[in-house]
Amino acid sequence: MAKLNYEDQESWPFESGKRQSPMDLHFAQAKKMPSAADLQLAYSQVASYAKDTGRGIEVGSSGQAMINQRPFSLQQFHFHAPSEHLLDGQDFPAEVHFVHEAADGQLAVIAVFLTVGQTSPAITSILHQLGASEKFACDVEKLLPKDRSYFHYLGSLTTPPLTETVEWYVMTHPVELSALQLKEFHQLYEHNNRKIQAMNDRPLLYFQAKEPS
Amino acid sequence: MAKLNYEDQESWPFESGKRQSPMDLHFAQAKKMPSAADLQLAYSQVASYAKDTGRGIEVGSSGQAMINQRPFSLQQFHFHAPSEHLLDGQDFPAEVHFVHEAADGQLAVIAVFLTVGQTSPAITSILHQLGASEKFACDVEKLLPKDRSYFHYLGSLTTPPLTETVEWYVMTHPVELSALQLKEFHQLYEHNNRKIQAMNDRPLLYFQAKEPS
Repeated sequence: MAKLNYEDQESWPFESGKRQSPMDLHFAQAKKMPSAADLQLAYSQVASYAKDTGRGIEVGSSGQAMINQRPFSLQQFHFHAPSEHLLDGQDFPAEVHFVHEAADGQLAVIAVFLTVGQTSPAITSILHQLGASEKFACDVEKLLPKDRSYFHYLGSLTTPPLTETVEWYVMTHPVELSALQLKEFHQLYEHNNRKIQAMNDRPLLYFQAKEPS
Repeated sequence: MAKLNYEDQESWPFESGKRQSPMDLHFAQAKKMPSAADLQLAYSQVASYAKDTGRGIEVGSSGQAMINQRPFSLQQFHFHAPSEHLLDGQDFPAEVHFVHEAADGQLAVIAVFLTVGQTSPAITSILHQLGASEKFACDVEKLLPKDRSYFHYLGSLTTPPLTETVEWYVMTHPVELSALQLKEFHQLYEHNNRKIQAMNDRPLLYFQAKEPS
């Protein structure tokens, strides 16, 4: 048995990069959890800014999320088009990421897929306000599906620094935006979705909502 | 505003290595949390093995931990001497790490400092059983302090691969082992403690137990 060399700690190997996001989420690979999905979201209906960060459109927002009874604070949300995650191998036209932080610095992102349909009033107000610096009304709740079933796994930020300490909660039910709104996203970014990353034997969990709508 | 280049994702910088363990934990730097410490530990009194892994003495164990109401399964516990974490700049003669995993793969380590005093019956049985492969009785509860106040921060494994997805819960109250038991640890390892790592602006939280003993 070789002993770990405590006299030369600088030479120890450091492993990272195996928990990257996004992922292709397959129902057949997921472990269905016995406890129900538990996302209690109380987001502000007033946004502090909407800007193009060079990575996509980001909206300054605040509010509280109780994720399985753990408190997180909403920092911002932003859009990717097409979607970053896939659902059973299929992408969606877009995906919104609600980025939260806990008191210990833990990051949690709630992801919602966007599909083409009705005009989203929230996205209308965001696109209208883009680049302006004053606060504006934004009905964030409309960017959340009624059925809050989700996949959960441990991954990373999907833009640099790609840090690997992110809990992902990817909702399986999409919300709608119009074809015109989607076109506006693509006028800013031909595409801003990171490629699918290897799962590397990470557990993928599925939590079903108690009362699907 | 420079746009992130989605056509050359392989060149994106990936940041890691800033959330390493162990740390020097200072009360003055910690944020005292309003909620009480909540560690509900139900560990098996039967251990499956005790072996020298080349990194220290490890004991196969099982049981459940509810850490702030989140379920984790105990995988093993092992010893470092001297302690890896420091408390207000001071080390302890030894430190035991209870390593847990959640359903999503999240790791949580509960650390307990050991100070020289009474003989620990649990450590006696572990040292007696070292290298044998049969199960043995081990009163693990005696390796846990009555007052379960703790520091909490996000860090890493303290041996390779040094992976940075570990929640740390470092109890502030030590338990005892005898000078002879400590000597037996040092006969196997002159020292097996990793050096203190940089805090890098990580939040350090302090949770006080409801009823200190």
